[in-house]
Amino acid sequence: MAPHPFSTLSVEETRRARDVVLAAHPSAVVDFREIFLQEPAKEEVKRFLDLEHSARLSPTSPRPPRLAKCQYDVIGSDRTPEYHESVIDVDSKRRVKHEVIGKEFQAGLTLWEFETLVKVCKASSMFQAAIAEFKLPEGFEVVIEPWPYGGLDLGSENRRYFQGLCFAQDLRSNNPDANFYAYPLPLIPVMDAHKKEIVRIDKLATGGKGDGLTEKTHSERIIDHCQNSDYVPELLEDGTRKDFKPINITQPEGPSFKVTNESLVEWQKWRFRVSFNPREGAVIHDVHYDGRSILYRLSISEMTVPYADPRPPFHRKQAFDFGDGGAGNCANNLSLGCDCLGVIKYFDGVVVGSDGEPRNHPNVICLHEQDNGIGWKHTNWRTGRAVVTRYRELVVQFIITLANYEYVFAYKFDLAGGITIEVRATGIVSVVNIDPGKTSDYGNVVSGGVLAQNHQHIFCARIDPAVDGHNNTVLHEESHTMPWDKDTNPNGNFYEVRKTVVHRSAGLDAAPQHNRTFKVINPNKTNPVSGRPVGYKFVPPPTQKLLASPGSIQSQRALFADHHVWVTKYKDDELYAGGRFTLQSQLEIDGVADAAKRNDSVTNEDVVLWSVFGLTHNPRVEDWPVMPVDIFQINLRPVDFFTANPSIDVPSNKNLSSQLVPSSTCCSEQGKL
Amino acid sequence: MAPHPFSTLSVEETRRARDVVLAAHPSAVVDFREIFLQEPAKEEVKRFLDLEHSARLSPTSPRPPRLAKCQYDVIGSDRTPEYHESVIDVDSKRRVKHEVIGKEFQAGLTLWEFETLVKVCKASSMFQAAIAEFKLPEGFEVVIEPWPYGGLDLGSENRRYFQGLCFAQDLRSNNPDANFYAYPLPLIPVMDAHKKEIVRIDKLATGGKGDGLTEKTHSERIIDHCQNSDYVPELLEDGTRKDFKPINITQPEGPSFKVTNESLVEWQKWRFRVSFNPREGAVIHDVHYDGRSILYRLSISEMTVPYADPRPPFHRKQAFDFGDGGAGNCANNLSLGCDCLGVIKYFDGVVVGSDGEPRNHPNVICLHEQDNGIGWKHTNWRTGRAVVTRYRELVVQFIITLANYEYVFAYKFDLAGGITIEVRATGIVSVVNIDPGKTSDYGNVVSGGVLAQNHQHIFCARIDPAVDGHNNTVLHEESHTMPWDKDTNPNGNFYEVRKTVVHRSAGLDAAPQHNRTFKVINPNKTNPVSGRPVGYKFVPPPTQKLLASPGSIQSQRALFADHHVWVTKYKDDELYAGGRFTLQSQLEIDGVADAAKRNDSVTNEDVVLWSVFGLTHNPRVEDWPVMPVDIFQINLRPVDFFTANPSIDVPSNKNLSSQLVPSSTCCSEQGKL
Repeated sequence: MAPHPFSTLSVEETRRARDVVLAAHPSAVVDFREIFLQEPAKEEVKRFLDLEHSARLSPTSPRPPRLAKCQYDVIGSDRTPEYHESVIDVDSKRRVKHEVIGKEFQAGLTLWEFETLVKVCKASSMFQAAIAEFKLPEGFEVVIEPWPYGGLDLGSENRRYFQGLCFAQDLRSNNPDANFYAYPLPLIPVMDAHKKEIVRIDKLATGGKGDGLTEKTHSERIIDHCQNSDYVPELLEDGTRKDFKPINITQPEGPSFKVTNESLVEWQKWRFRVSFNPREGAVIHDVHYDGRSILYRLSISEMTVPYADPRPPFHRKQAFDFGDGGAGNCANNLSLGCDCLGVIKYFDGVVVGSDGEPRNHPNVICLHEQDNGIGWKHTNWRTGRAVVTRYRELVVQFIITLANYEYVFAYKFDLAGGITIEVRATGIVSVVNIDPGKTSDYGNVVSGGVLAQNHQHIFCARIDPAVDGHNNTVLHEESHTMPWDKDTNPNGNFYEVRKTVVHRSAGLDAAPQHNRTFKVINPNKTNPVSGRPVGYKFVPPPTQKLLASPGSIQSQRALFADHHVWVTKYKDDELYAGGRFTLQSQLEIDGVADAAKRNDSVTNEDVVLWSVFGLTHNPRVEDWPVMPVDIFQINLRPVDFFTANPSIDVPSNKNLSSQLVPSSTCCSEQGKL
Repeated sequence: MAPHPFSTLSVEETRRARDVVLAAHPSAVVDFREIFLQEPAKEEVKRFLDLEHSARLSPTSPRPPRLAKCQYDVIGSDRTPEYHESVIDVDSKRRVKHEVIGKEFQAGLTLWEFETLVKVCKASSMFQAAIAEFKLPEGFEVVIEPWPYGGLDLGSENRRYFQGLCFAQDLRSNNPDANFYAYPLPLIPVMDAHKKEIVRIDKLATGGKGDGLTEKTHSERIIDHCQNSDYVPELLEDGTRKDFKPINITQPEGPSFKVTNESLVEWQKWRFRVSFNPREGAVIHDVHYDGRSILYRLSISEMTVPYADPRPPFHRKQAFDFGDGGAGNCANNLSLGCDCLGVIKYFDGVVVGSDGEPRNHPNVICLHEQDNGIGWKHTNWRTGRAVVTRYRELVVQFIITLANYEYVFAYKFDLAGGITIEVRATGIVSVVNIDPGKTSDYGNVVSGGVLAQNHQHIFCARIDPAVDGHNNTVLHEESHTMPWDKDTNPNGNFYEVRKTVVHRSAGLDAAPQHNRTFKVINPNKTNPVSGRPVGYKFVPPPTQKLLASPGSIQSQRALFADHHVWVTKYKDDELYAGGRFTLQSQLEIDGVADAAKRNDSVTNEDVVLWSVFGLTHNPRVEDWPVMPVDIFQINLRPVDFFTANPSIDVPSNKNLSSQLVPSSTCCSEQGKL
């Protein structure tokens, strides 16, 4: 059977694409970066989906081509890599598109470039000399943490650089998972990636309040005031707590979901497809409930993490975790009984090495059901009859590790027609060395000698709606106090609900003081009960926007972070809020801000919604050494889409496995009563 | 053993208090409203807790007296009830305080007054005549839903009134749980509670857009355009869904918590007490983590639900669900396997009848542990080693039913030192009749002839902190963009964290655009790692404040709803944000606004924080007939209180009961790869 147009590119398809690329460059060395599914043009997919949804699909039905996007460096005789992108039709084995990317853009990074940085540092006498200025205690070794190089100086040549944050690891325990972030070293080597050499070593300020931006009174015993800060259980001084008893989640009758044809998920009237790609991680496609279309596509589009420490070169700490290195590339291989409980279905991805050879990336997405408390309840107080149902969710989850930090992303579908996009931030905060006894305005001291710098995490979810069809309109609704008026508001209790249609593509903001709620409606379809257009709604979380000064490189690179909501007209391949190329960018180009600038008409059109949210993270000591999850959610909810609560038919059966607490653990003296 | 000062008053203690009250009024009829624990003065409790916490408590240690607050009507020879409040020392059987409440205040209502309204309506010829104007279909009966009477006309005598919302119930199915809210009748009888007679029948407007405020073109077939809207499973036309398989939550080694001495809960380094009273429901006392004090008391203080339909008398629809009728009085008796899953401990309450006779109110609070996904995770990408722990919560939950509506309140304690206050709104939205085919600016048509009116729910949580002691300071912290400056901000990436101490008691607001975060710190104690004062923080949800016009009765009655955060100086008995008497109030008196007006110094003092949050609820069709839960949370989190992530020692054991999805339900064609 032919793969579905949304299915992740298989290992075999990937290999076929690689072979076509190699054949196109017979006399050059080709270093592959990524090969992944190039989704077909929406118009083609729509024709296919129409047949699929109406059960008219046959083996002879026309199908959109299976296309692979191939990203690779071509290294010619002058040994300078040139970055190319091709689209390969994997069935006809033809190259259908080919682009040589200009030097003003940098391709996303790969793990092999990170490995190169570590090798080049080790071989660099400049780096070794810089390290030798410090006396590390016996048993400590230097660890280099490769980072993208943000904030290229204006006017300088846009060569490809990487920077390395440096730490020392206490290996006296012979444990390779000893937490080296507890021992930050105040230097950053900068590598020219094409020359493969260290071009500069930035010495870092280590001062505190009042020391100015350049204080670098480094003692050679630079980490003597730091301490072990371990998180692996075998290195915890007092071990793990002993009184934590298991909670088991079992599904004796099996899960309520079904996964067929690799990507099709069906659960409780929901039907959607899951795919995986190296940039966005898990992507949700073609979401239907009870046979009605809701979304065409749902993804996390981008995120940026700018650091606020003004001391150069810390302004270069600004990651774009989707565009720079690829969230999918950084996805964890999840494991049973750890990352989620219950009955779990895993999905695999496919990644390529620099030779383009694909391999399976196992368990990069997990799918499971979970209980989230009460779903709805009503008690008739006259009869005492209570009807109570559970809030069951189906969770599509993936987790990424970006050096020190992790994010848990989840798309959650519920019984009441709701979709929740959830992000949990965890992992280890990014830290630098601070002199003994000092504190700082640029962050918080979370361990001896360890300054966790203030920073932000700003995410952008891309929501491509198809509410009962592809032509939708976005509006926002606000509630406003109305003046007293003897004819219209005689008791002053009236508030007015005001609707504002978004006519032209634009960036818009949250307004919680007015309860501003965004709705995507289908203006061509009316709810038969309320007489209002069918729709879905969400309240944009009014989280703080990017704080870097307007015009600063941090700000210019992440124009998407300047509004909470963007509304644009759909355009094929316009997926990335921060632009196609974010690595070392100086300005967001062809991101969502540029898309909005087209000033397209967006009423009764194929629209896309972009939701920007995040956190200003001024670390606390409790975030160390691994921070407890901080949780963010966007809730998409039906609004006059259905003709009643769609979960009204959820059974209210008593769960028979629940138990009263045994009297041995609870010596409640109720006998007294 | 003597009961702990925070323990809920027992049946025996309650009966003793009743007897003292009866003896004090030998020649009058006494109708009891409530008898519950009068918490002792904080200074006395502090002395007791000091002994308790330092394990110096002995059977001969002085203990604060066990006091009962008794609320009752005294009906003398003129048959007009006079409302009294007494405080009874239940051990010495003495009345230690006695107050006759002035006629300008109304006591909270009781269920027996609701029953009276129904009886009086049935006996009222005025009411019967009004009902007779309508022709109800065969098999329908009138249902009267008693409500408090809000918004007394200014200048009118403050007599005690109740109003009844009227519906018709389709009893052709012989099911007493048929949903009568689907058949609203457009009239409201108003009862004088002392005279026990219907003094007026308000005829309700049933018009739509453009009809003005008084359109009352009632046809006698007033509910012929309404339809059944049932939620009890046996009345659902298509029954309940059949493919919903159970999720079982089991704890084979038992729970990780312990409950002793009736009220003391210990779990994962947490230690606190739970009590229950008829006004606030579950209250949390004396919260410690690992032997360190965090809170003295935590409760939901008040909530108000004003309706925005400007057509008189709908401005009288404004409930104060804690002050008017008592959240504890309305608490559901929870049942195993329905309201929570796993291993459950229930707590009982005590309520009194009008004769003051106490009885057990069983299972009004439930306590259980639950899994909430990932707690923290880090993967060392060099070694591939992932350490991942679960986010386990201990949940203290109670659920209240207020006529049509329900709220699920939960206090959740987590492994990382966090406390979450959660509210879930569910139940049936309040509705009125609307003419066939019309729509309205005052709400949404959610079923034939049924208009769900726009309204707000505004909650106030009262947080009495004791962060490492009772003397605390509140401040808020904001993050601000800083101008470019070659000396202090050369790359424009710096943002400044600004702290503002709250010096005087006041009402303050959320400011999400500045990431405004409130901190309660102990200025006398410094975190040894960061050098900053120890504290707890929360970000006030920037939800919309009360919308009713300033000066309107709705607004005057709920001054607490005009700020997101209040900071006051602790005062014994100052527990209720909306004031002691809310029923039929015209102005919030002695509520949190008055407390703030004292302009007390609140730095390094015994302070109280009040967090106001809620939702503007413009109903959608999906909220009918029972709305899916809408969830709100306040997150209290340690900030430099601990010296590291307190959950770092949570074991990362693999859960052994989790399973791969069986291949029979998932025909993933991975064989192809």
